[in-house]
Amino acid sequence: GNEAPATKKPCVEQKLELSYADRSKLPNIHPLASKLLKLMEDKRSNLCVSADVTSSQELLQLADSLGPKICVLKTHVDILEDYTADCGQKLQELAEKHNFLIFEDRKFADIGNTVKHQYKGGLYQISSWSHIVNAHAVPGPGVVNGLSAVGKSLGRGCLLIAQMSSQGSLATGEYTQAVLKMAEEQSDFVIGFICGSKVGTRPEFIHMTPGVQMQAGGDGLGQQYSTPEEVIHTKASDIIIVGRGVLEAPDRLKAAESYRKSGWDAYTKRLGPNSQ
Amino acid sequence: GNEAPATKKPCVEQKLELSYADRSKLPNIHPLASKLLKLMEDKRSNLCVSADVTSSQELLQLADSLGPKICVLKTHVDILEDYTADCGQKLQELAEKHNFLIFEDRKFADIGNTVKHQYKGGLYQISSWSHIVNAHAVPGPGVVNGLSAVGKSLGRGCLLIAQMSSQGSLATGEYTQAVLKMAEEQSDFVIGFICGSKVGTRPEFIHMTPGVQMQAGGDGLGQQYSTPEEVIHTKASDIIIVGRGVLEAPDRLKAAESYRKSGWDAYTKRLGPNSQ
Repeated sequence: GNEAPATKKPCVEQKLELSYADRSKLPNIHPLASKLLKLMEDKRSNLCVSADVTSSQELLQLADSLGPKICVLKTHVDILEDYTADCGQKLQELAEKHNFLIFEDRKFADIGNTVKHQYKGGLYQISSWSHIVNAHAVPGPGVVNGLSAVGKSLGRGCLLIAQMSSQGSLATGEYTQAVLKMAEEQSDFVIGFICGSKVGTRPEFIHMTPGVQMQAGGDGLGQQYSTPEEVIHTKASDIIIVGRGVLEAPDRLKAAESYRKSGWDAYTKRLGPNSQ
Repeated sequence: GNEAPATKKPCVEQKLELSYADRSKLPNIHPLASKLLKLMEDKRSNLCVSADVTSSQELLQLADSLGPKICVLKTHVDILEDYTADCGQKLQELAEKHNFLIFEDRKFADIGNTVKHQYKGGLYQISSWSHIVNAHAVPGPGVVNGLSAVGKSLGRGCLLIAQMSSQGSLATGEYTQAVLKMAEEQSDFVIGFICGSKVGTRPEFIHMTPGVQMQAGGDGLGQQYSTPEEVIHTKASDIIIVGRGVLEAPDRLKAAESYRKSGWDAYTKRLGPNSQ
């Protein structure tokens, strides 16, 4: 197996491709990132399902049926028509039962003092049930400070949005570079990125990529799709986020298994023949 | 009074400073922007109070007591601990009674298909009670398309976040320019900007500036404050957004009146001696 390089050896390092398991044991890794990488290896899954449904019952049903196939369940709690605190509680129980993490895709994007309240309070009390949240870097580092003030002591982690899958996104070039810098400066709470391809070189950071379907293409509102093979093998991201590809399939469980397998195959292909 | 220049006359235009009333009558103005500019003139107020409280009752109380002083009430509905649909209904009644607009400061920042659901659905059904919402441009034009698909037919309007008051914000330079372009391309739904200073030249767009206090300074989470005089007179923005300057005052009504007067004085000073 591979080991974390102790010193800089550029030529060797380029060929090294650490496995999820290897990375979970890196000395400086955030405990939540470590837990996620370990369960990915254990479950042989780099699939995050985006559970964009509007009923709590359907969300919980999805979490229970797809739980064994996924490493992360991504939620949009603010589109549920009937959310109650009980839903957050049950989600946590299902995450425990099936060994996945919950990621509320809230895209916090306000000043520190405001996101603190949005993360902890209101009807959703996101910090009480979601292991992972994400944030836009556009407000500056205060957005991470505000979230961290609530989530760090709870063992939560945050993904910064470095790139987006939508057409004409402004998260490119210098913006993306600024996001990387912000993540490195606050790596006690930031565990990785939402991105189209691997953007950072630190193996402690986890890269998650939305807009994944079996066929490349788009919707009518600017969303653009890539395939699991492109995302994990070519673009070297870590986790595929699949929404409509699973939700709109006639058999969701079968679709999830198919994405899990594609994502995992692309990962083992990336690791190379000597790593397995 | 002044008139909208029909042709480009750079030298004259630089001296021209249209009043809120003049701008409300511009031929291409969005109906909601027109309504807002007119009520600002009628109420002699360019004050938006940011009602960052966590109880519905306190929010409604604020709206009722400060209503006569303000042109816009800015809400963060997702920090209320006890929101029900009744709160949205009552807010609308108070907006009607005191002639102000409601602006839910949601900072939508996702792909079009997602913000559609977040704007219309969930527990908050924001589109049903908030006249104005705002959005980050980072996802690309799809975010406005998604919101517009819900709000346009309801007569709602959207502000794009061109700049932020927080330290280290990435909404600067080319990013801000891209926001302006996006607004111009979707001016049937975008009515203006959140910004630190006037960023666009079209008098149909309304500029609103957060982070306003009587004394310049900052909080411990990156927020930076400017004064009403700086924002309206020097920076040529249209509306001051005041949160803690009013909420943390011993007498909120007195504080609101003091901000209203400062903002209005700065506006008349900007218009110059011949305009009043």
